Amino acid sequence: MINVSILGYGTIGSGVFEILNKNKQIITKRNSGEIRVKSVLDLRDFPGDPVEDVLVHDFSEIENDDEVQIVVETMGGLHPAYDFVKACLEKGKSVCTSNKALVAAFGPELLSIAEEKKCNFLFEASVGGGIPIIRPLKTSLAPDEILEISGILNGTTNYILTEMTEKGADFETVLKDAQDKGYAEKDPSADVEGHDTCRKIAILTSLAYGSQVDFEDIYTEGITKITERDINYAKKLGAKIKIVGFSKRNKERISAMVVPKLITSEHPLYSVDGVFNAILVKGNMTGDVMFYGQGAGKHATASAVVSDIMEASKHMGINIKTIWESDKLELVPFEESVSKFFVRFSGTSEENTPKAVKAFGDVMPVEAGYNDEYAFITKAITESAFKKAAKEVGNIINKIRIDA
Amino acid sequence: MINVSILGYGTIGSGVFEILNKNKQIITKRNSGEIRVKSVLDLRDFPGDPVEDVLVHDFSEIENDDEVQIVVETMGGLHPAYDFVKACLEKGKSVCTSNKALVAAFGPELLSIAEEKKCNFLFEASVGGGIPIIRPLKTSLAPDEILEISGILNGTTNYILTEMTEKGADFETVLKDAQDKGYAEKDPSADVEGHDTCRKIAILTSLAYGSQVDFEDIYTEGITKITERDINYAKKLGAKIKIVGFSKRNKERISAMVVPKLITSEHPLYSVDGVFNAILVKGNMTGDVMFYGQGAGKHATASAVVSDIMEASKHMGINIKTIWESDKLELVPFEESVSKFFVRFSGTSEENTPKAVKAFGDVMPVEAGYNDEYAFITKAITESAFKKAAKEVGNIINKIRIDA
Repeated sequence: MINVSILGYGTIGSGVFEILNKNKQIITKRNSGEIRVKSVLDLRDFPGDPVEDVLVHDFSEIENDDEVQIVVETMGGLHPAYDFVKACLEKGKSVCTSNKALVAAFGPELLSIAEEKKCNFLFEASVGGGIPIIRPLKTSLAPDEILEISGILNGTTNYILTEMTEKGADFETVLKDAQDKGYAEKDPSADVEGHDTCRKIAILTSLAYGSQVDFEDIYTEGITKITERDINYAKKLGAKIKIVGFSKRNKERISAMVVPKLITSEHPLYSVDGVFNAILVKGNMTGDVMFYGQGAGKHATASAVVSDIMEASKHMGINIKTIWESDKLELVPFEESVSKFFVRFSGTSEENTPKAVKAFGDVMPVEAGYNDEYAFITKAITESAFKKAAKEVGNIINKIRIDA
Repeated sequence: MINVSILGYGTIGSGVFEILNKNKQIITKRNSGEIRVKSVLDLRDFPGDPVEDVLVHDFSEIENDDEVQIVVETMGGLHPAYDFVKACLEKGKSVCTSNKALVAAFGPELLSIAEEKKCNFLFEASVGGGIPIIRPLKTSLAPDEILEISGILNGTTNYILTEMTEKGADFETVLKDAQDKGYAEKDPSADVEGHDTCRKIAILTSLAYGSQVDFEDIYTEGITKITERDINYAKKLGAKIKIVGFSKRNKERISAMVVPKLITSEHPLYSVDGVFNAILVKGNMTGDVMFYGQGAGKHATASAVVSDIMEASKHMGINIKTIWESDKLELVPFEESVSKFFVRFSGTSEENTPKAVKAFGDVMPVEAGYNDEYAFITKAITESAFKKAAKEVGNIINKIRIDA
């Protein structure tokens, strides 16, 4: 019998409680032993809910309960989540969390406490919801040098971009619809500005290269400037616009970014639509591997947490090695990052093309039938070269990056 | 330091040797210790090859070498692979294999020896080449009741069907081209008749439900009867033809089959083309998760073997529980399996439709501009109902199943 406590009875925490009950039989069989929820911490009361019998309001009851071997953290936010998790690990209790903010900010410290105390800090649910990605990256891809990770890591923005593409609607309309359907938060900025994706690619990149990537160091651009016209150009190019968090290795240097990208139809991420997420990993031996599924949602995410509980319960007293040192990984400075750019300028093509060619060199014009603007794709250039050339041409409307 | 021996220096075995050398630095770091290839068994000599220094010709040298803790089996075939693997496990050496025939035939027995001897029998590379699927099924999806597994599990046949679709070429022409390119064997029957896919879905289904699925019990149909006309009908339907190995749970009963299927564009497997493979798993909590990548190839497959070596080396003296009992899982009899059928008959639609409607009930006609045949899609019916009705109509040319 393994005793588990859950910190936070919100969407994910209650999902964990539900799965451990509903799938108890199969979980017990596969785990060689029962997993019991001994206590659940929440400030609220839940009259009539099955959680009532095990509800506690005081963290110290869990911290000081020597029978509790595994703690689930599904509170979200940094404090008191960090303080609670740290206290549990220091008592030798394994912790399984879905909290990407916590993992992105304190991953190396919490992993090192777990190592010292011979317990585990696991966070499969922090990236990609129900998609197995953290564990495969740590185990299945362990023999590989990771050359690239590219992910559609946020269901809300992928849903919005998919709807804009399929229905020809504009950003604001689709956002409102997504909010009505519960796919987007009232304050959607964490999603639509790319911050959520940024924390997730920071975690994946840290794990891939074994050193801390600070999410603040990753250039992040959201989707709020994407218009119907951008989408129409993309269609003309047989492409889709997706917000992608990616990191890439070039020799010994790593670059990382969160930006809307033009993705062509041969790319495995092209057909990942709606609320689905996917993460493409390129290993130097395995080549391209992609993981696809529901990147959010109560049961999918909670199932990932439960898989961590089972992993922890099979490794009592044994730390599962995870390389993520606190030394900071220096990323390639944003200005030196190289992309092709799809770029739109106001004015007419006839008048302005010579100026554009002078500034950018050879460009590939893109037509979508608009008379008041012109657009083209540049060759692969650095961000700073782009900025300089775009300034020379002037009147830029929007730009979207394309893999170099 | 962990000492490894490799049985068989063919494509995969030499790939394992190469990766352990080429990626030595990262593997040592992630593994907390060096992995050394102490010996390689092959009947041949390899003059000038770096393997020469560790080559042995006699299995007993490995079997009786107490320093060898992990053995890689990449010989293929059932004998002597089975005998060698069994002997190693009985000596407490962990075994990592890429041999699907071995795993499909002797999985439960070898797993139970490993459990008894506190070592491990691992076989990530036996299904899906470089795609992580065995380990995610055992760990990440462990909290879920598995409702369905559907896989494009054979690169050769997927390449052939993709080329037929994209180039409008017929089966024989594309097969010859695939043989010239080395994508298909001289004797292609294991691939094109579906036997390779069958062993792989047998392994996945056994793991999903924890009991032995005999591959001989799985109805298996290859792609040799697929013609240009079938492909053209599929295009008219906005679909592709893919050979799919699948198993499905309906209440407590499991059905399994390997057949060409019409896959529509909303299905995640639709865009899996060329030599790529993908496996879609539906869990009762996680929903759809898909794993995509190179299903074969020297380095991708060998990397999967190396990931197993690393897993085994982190679990010395600890058996990683794998539920796959020898009790046989009784599958739903083939005759009772339910599908929709796309079916073509010779003759004209005008003359024959009343007969077809009489036999099948409502059908959905499909037009592709041929005057000497007619085609339609049936409602969901059992195999035996299909057989009976098709006999009543007569002159069947071909049929392709569609998810019910």
